[in-house]
Amino acid sequence: MIQERIAALRSLMAERQIDAYMIPTSDFHESEYVGDYFKCRKFITGFTGSAGTAIITQTEARLWTDGRYFVQAAKQLEGSGVLLMKSGQEGVPTEEEYLAEVMPQNGTLGFDGRVVNSQLGEKLEELLEDKHVKFSWKEDLVDLIWEDRPALSAEPVWILKENYAGKSAADKIADLREAMKKEKTTVHVLTTLDDIVWLLNIRGNDVVCNPVVLSYALVTMERFYLFINEAVLDSEVKSYLKELGVTVRPYNDIYDAVSQLKGQKVLLETAKTNYAIISNLDESNAVVDRMNPTAPAKAVKNPVEIENMKKAHIKDGVAMVKFICWLKKNIGKQTITELDAEHYLDNLRAEQEGNLGLSFHTISAYGANAAMCHYSATPESNAALEPKGLYLVDSGGQYYEGTTDVTRTISLGETTEAEREHFTLSVISMLRLAAVKFLYGCRGLTLDYVAREPLWSRGLNFDHGTGHGVGYLLNVHERPNGIRWRMVPERQDNCVLEEGMVTSDEPGVYIEGSHGVRTENLIVCKKAEKNEYGQFMEFEFLTFVPIDLEALDKSLMNERDVELLNSYHSAVYEKISPYLTAEEAEWLKENTRAV
Amino acid sequence: MIQERIAALRSLMAERQIDAYMIPTSDFHESEYVGDYFKCRKFITGFTGSAGTAIITQTEARLWTDGRYFVQAAKQLEGSGVLLMKSGQEGVPTEEEYLAEVMPQNGTLGFDGRVVNSQLGEKLEELLEDKHVKFSWKEDLVDLIWEDRPALSAEPVWILKENYAGKSAADKIADLREAMKKEKTTVHVLTTLDDIVWLLNIRGNDVVCNPVVLSYALVTMERFYLFINEAVLDSEVKSYLKELGVTVRPYNDIYDAVSQLKGQKVLLETAKTNYAIISNLDESNAVVDRMNPTAPAKAVKNPVEIENMKKAHIKDGVAMVKFICWLKKNIGKQTITELDAEHYLDNLRAEQEGNLGLSFHTISAYGANAAMCHYSATPESNAALEPKGLYLVDSGGQYYEGTTDVTRTISLGETTEAEREHFTLSVISMLRLAAVKFLYGCRGLTLDYVAREPLWSRGLNFDHGTGHGVGYLLNVHERPNGIRWRMVPERQDNCVLEEGMVTSDEPGVYIEGSHGVRTENLIVCKKAEKNEYGQFMEFEFLTFVPIDLEALDKSLMNERDVELLNSYHSAVYEKISPYLTAEEAEWLKENTRAV
Repeated sequence: MIQERIAALRSLMAERQIDAYMIPTSDFHESEYVGDYFKCRKFITGFTGSAGTAIITQTEARLWTDGRYFVQAAKQLEGSGVLLMKSGQEGVPTEEEYLAEVMPQNGTLGFDGRVVNSQLGEKLEELLEDKHVKFSWKEDLVDLIWEDRPALSAEPVWILKENYAGKSAADKIADLREAMKKEKTTVHVLTTLDDIVWLLNIRGNDVVCNPVVLSYALVTMERFYLFINEAVLDSEVKSYLKELGVTVRPYNDIYDAVSQLKGQKVLLETAKTNYAIISNLDESNAVVDRMNPTAPAKAVKNPVEIENMKKAHIKDGVAMVKFICWLKKNIGKQTITELDAEHYLDNLRAEQEGNLGLSFHTISAYGANAAMCHYSATPESNAALEPKGLYLVDSGGQYYEGTTDVTRTISLGETTEAEREHFTLSVISMLRLAAVKFLYGCRGLTLDYVAREPLWSRGLNFDHGTGHGVGYLLNVHERPNGIRWRMVPERQDNCVLEEGMVTSDEPGVYIEGSHGVRTENLIVCKKAEKNEYGQFMEFEFLTFVPIDLEALDKSLMNERDVELLNSYHSAVYEKISPYLTAEEAEWLKENTRAV
Repeated sequence: MIQERIAALRSLMAERQIDAYMIPTSDFHESEYVGDYFKCRKFITGFTGSAGTAIITQTEARLWTDGRYFVQAAKQLEGSGVLLMKSGQEGVPTEEEYLAEVMPQNGTLGFDGRVVNSQLGEKLEELLEDKHVKFSWKEDLVDLIWEDRPALSAEPVWILKENYAGKSAADKIADLREAMKKEKTTVHVLTTLDDIVWLLNIRGNDVVCNPVVLSYALVTMERFYLFINEAVLDSEVKSYLKELGVTVRPYNDIYDAVSQLKGQKVLLETAKTNYAIISNLDESNAVVDRMNPTAPAKAVKNPVEIENMKKAHIKDGVAMVKFICWLKKNIGKQTITELDAEHYLDNLRAEQEGNLGLSFHTISAYGANAAMCHYSATPESNAALEPKGLYLVDSGGQYYEGTTDVTRTISLGETTEAEREHFTLSVISMLRLAAVKFLYGCRGLTLDYVAREPLWSRGLNFDHGTGHGVGYLLNVHERPNGIRWRMVPERQDNCVLEEGMVTSDEPGVYIEGSHGVRTENLIVCKKAEKNEYGQFMEFEFLTFVPIDLEALDKSLMNERDVELLNSYHSAVYEKISPYLTAEEAEWLKENTRAV
């Protein structure tokens, strides 16, 4: 079947004299997750992982993916004739290097310009310039052969009321126009979905776990064009948008609209815009390439959002406590697998008032599975939980009152010294980072050492960022705030920490083949005292879920660590216990006792 | 006198139809300190501070300087007709803003292009483009009216032997050519003096406290041109340079040489190159604007340099211990002023074998004077040391075996609780930062929090970087390594910390009108263990000078702080005591005792 699809693609390529066709994993909006409509790479190669790029020539078919997927991809590509390229391994060329090698002089490289990032496109242009390679980017060839292709998601749009959003869309649009003015631009092209729905105070359900709406926006000083499938708008939303001054136009008309911006100075962010959009501009356009002004604006939660997020986290904490209490009481008494636990927790969240689903797929990982940071339990991997060792659960919900993200590592019975040590270190790291006081002007980069020190001083580390920004009833991963020790400019998550920014705080330790621990709370940045040295800042916890005392080795903690833990636990009990059954509350009291 | 000079300048300006003439404080090489020849701004305005820019028009004369000099400048400008512009104060335009305001349409701005940074020049070009302002940059008008102008420094050049330098100049030049090749350039223009002398393993004495040589270098793949006053080269140096393949040409011929590079791709660093050099290139030249490859190469001290620096620091430590011991024993018994103490210490350093002078002007500051970070005792400010309170001394030497920089704060008798608290915090900060273990890839930015935390957690701070790179028998301030919490890209001191880099570690606390404390050691970065998480790194002390136990409040220290201090002091005694008199050694033993 895969071979037939590749053959069909090759015959389309031959007709068009395309020498190589590239199929990345992306939607038109640089979204983190993509809907079924966008799974062209999976359709052509059979590989179902969340990351990968296929490149097809008349003689070769290759698939690049990263270390998370080497085993799975090898299995899924078997017999397909598609060659697996293990990205990052020594001697394995990157997609760019491969194209530079195989593209013939004066050849043509094909791809759907809407699913290729504009910066990647420009990099390829430079790389293939010497060979005079032309790009054929206006056609989605896979669409021509994918007969039963799923439709584009078309979930209804709804309005997020101001008691949730805290600020009117009109005010947000006015701020955006101020930012456009500052950059001396007259038009702004915005294609990132979370920015668009945040700006308009609307939500939808077009990307899994992200309540966004497939759309593009083109904003001038007087007009606001929203390119969207009109069928998803009911009359209430239509009149809301009309009142806002928003003109609705068909989803795909953005490309035409951009090509008509002749002579205008356009504000847009090339790192977040697809190649087709940029290619529809021409030399008469000056592009001011800046981070979308909505990104930092959205990251600073307003007081209404923060108060709401506190409420969302109480609900979420209640679900988590009920889950942990259930798990602790039933482990060893009934069969519980990773998937059982996941479903039990997901259901508890769904039962919370105002819950709108998960903010990401729950990671429910027992024992050695928890050592894989990106683990997702499947029927094949689904481990049965035993009354010993550590279980890690990383999960979150979408609520009218905001987005949550919490990780707890839970002792299911007897634990090893290494397990307790690593668990305790992740707790110490999490608590100390959350307790920092710092001068305004700090970035996550300046603070990350606090979370690393307990590990680095012992020759340990974890190979992921310590924290990411979190949206409000939006994407669980949001820039531009973050906490990491390496400078990775392309991640754009190293901004100065502003009052109102919500960040995760999630140090861990992962021992391959043995166990994994992570402790994650969300923290909100706020002002502390101001004096002659400047404005001091600090964090406040949003997450209130107990930390498992049964896995704790108190001997590793200093006096302050113990104080931080006890004070946190006392707040957990105070905030969560009113919403529990008497039995659960009693359990919580015992498990948030001062140590 | 000043008024006459300005009048003379104005008449030259009028002859040349120059509307405004700008005189910054700089030599031709972007050096940190400038020699007497380069003090044009002082000549024209009478202001003697180390930083300032004068701009003269036919109707106005203005001088910009920063907060360190407001009082002094006001006094020195009195009656001169020169208006003081307090840089950074609200409502005070910058030099650029002023020029944008006063320059007439189609006017001419004059300056000596050799003393204006090329980036500033380009910024002014952009800013004044709309007014079609022309630049007259080829003439040093001050030179035409400065009759008794001091000559350019012309100190003899000498060769730094390989047992000191650790690497031959031939090898360094070969490395440089490799770097040029990587950037696909055929020629490199190098004008920063410390880079030139480091590259050639020569030293001189043309900038105060910096053993550099006034010169420019132009390097091709085959040739090395050194533009220098030939009179400073004796026959030994001449034949050394000849053997190295270095062609000597007159100092000012660099400008002609650059203008003859037609069509070539030039590697140079615009941020460190003057406007005249860049302006002698033309459109046929492509400029690859990168940090001079010598800067990071020079910052990584080789094993020979590190072993030598350890020796230099023993000598320097001996001088410091003798000084502190003398001060402690004589305070209250004889009159000792800040200048007395400074001279006593400077003499002790000069007596050390292989000492070649100071690495910067000694800061000898008592009481409230120490609260001014850039204090320099003058006959007017010279305070008498009393047997109470704190005395701060920040000083360093140049030795064949390297450059030193050390600050100690010394109790002269009774101290207040605040003084002891602040002193102890600076000690804790210094010790903790020096004791970090971190993964390779960290920058100073990632580590600075360790030094700030003891202060920030108490609502305190110090308003300077925690650490700067230090040269080897070169400039005491050297990029690209440094330790600070703010990202300040233009400082270029935030590189990844490499094994062999030497950085200062100098937290402090400054209470205006009362006291100032700072504790500074130099630390060298080295490899710790390597494991599955990567290469761990750590620091090692170079500086061995006791920390004053009499000013210490042990109750502020945790157990580890005390351990770090005791272990440091035990090393101080072991390394320094063999070079002391019996009486001094006894004093040191007592004052490095475990607490």
